Amino acid sequence: MTRPVETPLVQTLPATVPFVGPEAIERRRAQIFKARIGANESVFGPSPRVLQVLRDASAEAWMYGDPESYELREALAAGIGCAREAVVIGEGIDALLGYAVRLYVGAGDHVVTSDGAYPTFNYHVAGYGGSLIKVPYRDDKEDIEGLLAAAEASKAKMIYLSNPDNPMGSWHEASVIEDMIARLPFGCMLLLDEAYVEFAPDGAVPNLSLDDPRVIRMRTFSKAYGMAGLRVGYAYGEGQVIRGFEKIRNHFGMNRLSQAAALAAINDPAWLDDIRRLVAASCSRIGQIARDNGFSPLPSATNFVTMDCGADAGFARAVLQALEDRDVFVRMPFAAPGNRCIRITAAPDGEIDRFAEALPGAIKAAKAIG
Amino acid sequence: MTRPVETPLVQTLPATVPFVGPEAIERRRAQIFKARIGANESVFGPSPRVLQVLRDASAEAWMYGDPESYELREALAAGIGCAREAVVIGEGIDALLGYAVRLYVGAGDHVVTSDGAYPTFNYHVAGYGGSLIKVPYRDDKEDIEGLLAAAEASKAKMIYLSNPDNPMGSWHEASVIEDMIARLPFGCMLLLDEAYVEFAPDGAVPNLSLDDPRVIRMRTFSKAYGMAGLRVGYAYGEGQVIRGFEKIRNHFGMNRLSQAAALAAINDPAWLDDIRRLVAASCSRIGQIARDNGFSPLPSATNFVTMDCGADAGFARAVLQALEDRDVFVRMPFAAPGNRCIRITAAPDGEIDRFAEALPGAIKAAKAIG
Repeated sequence: MTRPVETPLVQTLPATVPFVGPEAIERRRAQIFKARIGANESVFGPSPRVLQVLRDASAEAWMYGDPESYELREALAAGIGCAREAVVIGEGIDALLGYAVRLYVGAGDHVVTSDGAYPTFNYHVAGYGGSLIKVPYRDDKEDIEGLLAAAEASKAKMIYLSNPDNPMGSWHEASVIEDMIARLPFGCMLLLDEAYVEFAPDGAVPNLSLDDPRVIRMRTFSKAYGMAGLRVGYAYGEGQVIRGFEKIRNHFGMNRLSQAAALAAINDPAWLDDIRRLVAASCSRIGQIARDNGFSPLPSATNFVTMDCGADAGFARAVLQALEDRDVFVRMPFAAPGNRCIRITAAPDGEIDRFAEALPGAIKAAKAIG
Repeated sequence: MTRPVETPLVQTLPATVPFVGPEAIERRRAQIFKARIGANESVFGPSPRVLQVLRDASAEAWMYGDPESYELREALAAGIGCAREAVVIGEGIDALLGYAVRLYVGAGDHVVTSDGAYPTFNYHVAGYGGSLIKVPYRDDKEDIEGLLAAAEASKAKMIYLSNPDNPMGSWHEASVIEDMIARLPFGCMLLLDEAYVEFAPDGAVPNLSLDDPRVIRMRTFSKAYGMAGLRVGYAYGEGQVIRGFEKIRNHFGMNRLSQAAALAAINDPAWLDDIRRLVAASCSRIGQIARDNGFSPLPSATNFVTMDCGADAGFARAVLQALEDRDVFVRMPFAAPGNRCIRITAAPDGEIDRFAEALPGAIKAAKAIG
């Protein structure tokens, strides 16, 4: 029995997971987290209308979802002000990032991202043989000039940028993004990850032409809409570019209940306004807790607060670990200089109470190690 | 604004969909189907326990699913009698087929399948640059000897086989499959699609060693379990082969509600027994309707009946179209000689009543064209 041989590219890849899930930590510790505020999920949950639609649509679970996600795309396109053909639905932004990389990045092609930005994007680039160039954050923001320079120097095919940014919570003004796009090097495109766009302040959402084939914008129902478990993301851009996804996507990959739930979410804008208020209040409270404990919260345009623990990555990691020991799940940025921080997701008061209770002891424990 | 350039492989691919969904036909006709019996979904729906879990789990929709699908894999592995590491979960068999092709098929590699077998598999092979060799069905079964000979002659990396078979509903005995595996050419592996295995007669499910790295078995909750809209499939096989999926799969692709629903489905085996009885009775009735109208039903080991319309593909297509005109959605095999047939999915009596009512008129209309 000769072992089948993986492709030369696959042979070079590690078996890896971009993120360890909180469930894996819970299994290892044999203890459920009392506050799950580490994955930037919306602990406030989805709209009651979404929950109602999920219950109602369960009777349709036996049917494959519409492979065209027609109604959902119609609704999204109406909101954006574009044609349905300019929108593609996928199994979360994760899947859409994978498709975009597969469409454009071949073995040896260069791709530019920020050091410490989204690991799942990096996973996809590596998975298709692309060569990653990582530009450090500057002043806790993605370094636009650095990204452009690296793309120019490497003749990169693609730049990845999230705005607002994860994991730092920072953002660039619309004009900065618009200017960046105007200056994209020849042959280079931009994947603009707007997972947190619903939390962005006025003036931080660029006004982009859908005639520009060099930009693909990606958004999700996983954050503000509170539907991370349902796996619905969308990408939009120039029609022919979006049509490219039809060549490779998993046409029957969408969950039928999720399609219905996303449509219900769009149709409840008042809920989104409520969530924005709740998240802003929670982020404000998390910031105060940080200051009360001698940490410095960074400004946030997202549903999380990244806080500077005031020392090195080792100390931040020790605080993180000590919070885990106290049944509080949070995460931290992966790379310097952001990894002096920990990152806390906005949540109802009960979860934030637990964080507030756990933090002083966690800091004490972390200091005892150092 | 220079248009970004797709990879050389992607440039060769058409924007296509392996199947047109029934919703697309409904939109074109501006008319909802009265019987949706064309996609081999389980019109009987899922277990009431699954529906209950879907409703209960909707409160967890804000959380990402466990990227390891730990509990579901544990339950499946216990049923199979293997280690959890020998099982991988995916967004339907469609996604798992895509992953398997990506792992093993590179540009120019040969892959063998039956002519008229699963188009989504073919879509994935083309999508990764593989070269498809199609072996005609023989006696309305997949031609094992022909598949082996084609693989040998082409030095193929992979053979695709579904057992029981879609779209013909036929099957091979376990010993035939076991013998086929023993005779796989050097360097060739088998993707064994067992989407319909829960309907297979005694003796048609091979007993395969999980030590053999050349075979990957794939199963689904979309057919017997009535959960097509929830997108849960699984593959199992030798540990190191299955571990390969960790290199490329969308780790956070699984819907959290679907994970819970699949677990509930496994824990309700009595429901599966009921479904088997209901499907057998419905297939029997569909067969009688076929005979009453001068058609010849083929033996079926699945939840559908493929019936020989007694003439050529043009006639079968005309019958199909005439059924559509009567608001009945069915499909037909894509390639000769199977495309002299139409394929009807088992369903509750209401749907089959509508088919029985529509068929005589549809045949008359089809004959009037010819």
